Amino acid sequence: MWNYKTPGIPDEEFERTEKVPITKEEVRTIQISKARLKPGQTVYDIGCGSGSISVESALQVESSGKVLAIDYDQNAVDLTKKNAKKFGISNISAIFGNAKEEISKLEDADVIFVGGTGADTKEIVELAENKLKSRGRIVIGIILIETLYSVLQVLDKLQFEAVDITQVTISKSRKTTTGTMMLARNPVTIISATKI
Amino acid sequence: MWNYKTPGIPDEEFERTEKVPITKEEVRTIQISKARLKPGQTVYDIGCGSGSISVESALQVESSGKVLAIDYDQNAVDLTKKNAKKFGISNISAIFGNAKEEISKLEDADVIFVGGTGADTKEIVELAENKLKSRGRIVIGIILIETLYSVLQVLDKLQFEAVDITQVTISKSRKTTTGTMMLARNPVTIISATKI
Repeated sequence: MWNYKTPGIPDEEFERTEKVPITKEEVRTIQISKARLKPGQTVYDIGCGSGSISVESALQVESSGKVLAIDYDQNAVDLTKKNAKKFGISNISAIFGNAKEEISKLEDADVIFVGGTGADTKEIVELAENKLKSRGRIVIGIILIETLYSVLQVLDKLQFEAVDITQVTISKSRKTTTGTMMLARNPVTIISATKI
Repeated sequence: MWNYKTPGIPDEEFERTEKVPITKEEVRTIQISKARLKPGQTVYDIGCGSGSISVESALQVESSGKVLAIDYDQNAVDLTKKNAKKFGISNISAIFGNAKEEISKLEDADVIFVGGTGADTKEIVELAENKLKSRGRIVIGIILIETLYSVLQVLDKLQFEAVDITQVTISKSRKTTTGTMMLARNPVTIISATKI
């Protein structure tokens, strides 16, 4: 359970499995904020990994809303279900499959998160545009330079406005025997936009 | 008005005045998340500047909670009141004065934000510890190396646990005539901790 209204659940509160990635607390918090969530919304979490964005989104859209989480790794789907249960959440549906095939079967969305999809991201953004309601928000988390380039190219051609590109670099402290040092994490680029 | 549940109001939604600083959207979002807010809480925003953290906090603690914003610059106090009004918020009290004198007059707090206080930060953290309820959260936004050092020194001596040090570096895109470049902002260090 998470007894607070604010997003930003500490990473260590989530169940983890080897090889299934998690969107870390601070980057996740910014992604959730860029999505502009409210009760009653329908959210996709494409490439849900550990389900941390699904859990935070489900808390924001409340029981009147829902989260449709998709991953092509069965371990990720299982872990997302486990984390939904851990946080006492019943409005997440975790779907195993290829997002490119699954998206067309889903109801229209108010918010779509895209992450962890690598080479497919450009295609998924195109499909997502189709399923987003007018004024809906897309939030894409990107690590690869190639993905960043291809998403920027495709966004220009689609019905999006207010495109925001934010690169986030987080460092966290570690105590050494002689003091406190900062350990850098890799930069993540978050692209967000509003469907026209 | 902000019609969403998630924090992270875009900077341009706030009224601004020359020389009064604002905690920018992404850093503000992380600070709010580290505070772990919920309805009914009492929050101090020490060095409130434009009032952006006060506004976001007031929305999270809802009308059953309250925000006590303090600044020694009358322009900041006026601007915080203006922003509270702009967002239709009535549970912010903006107080003009020196935080070191004002804090003792306030009721105990669940969450204390400290920012923009420069050389006084160490002393304010000591006073804040006194006013924080048990399990309350402190969140300190720091730009100066000297402040970072002195706050770390003092935190060790006070009744705090789960001390988290997160450095955040944000870059934002700008369109040039030939493409998209990233413009770096200065790093901000956020220290958060729980009162024992």
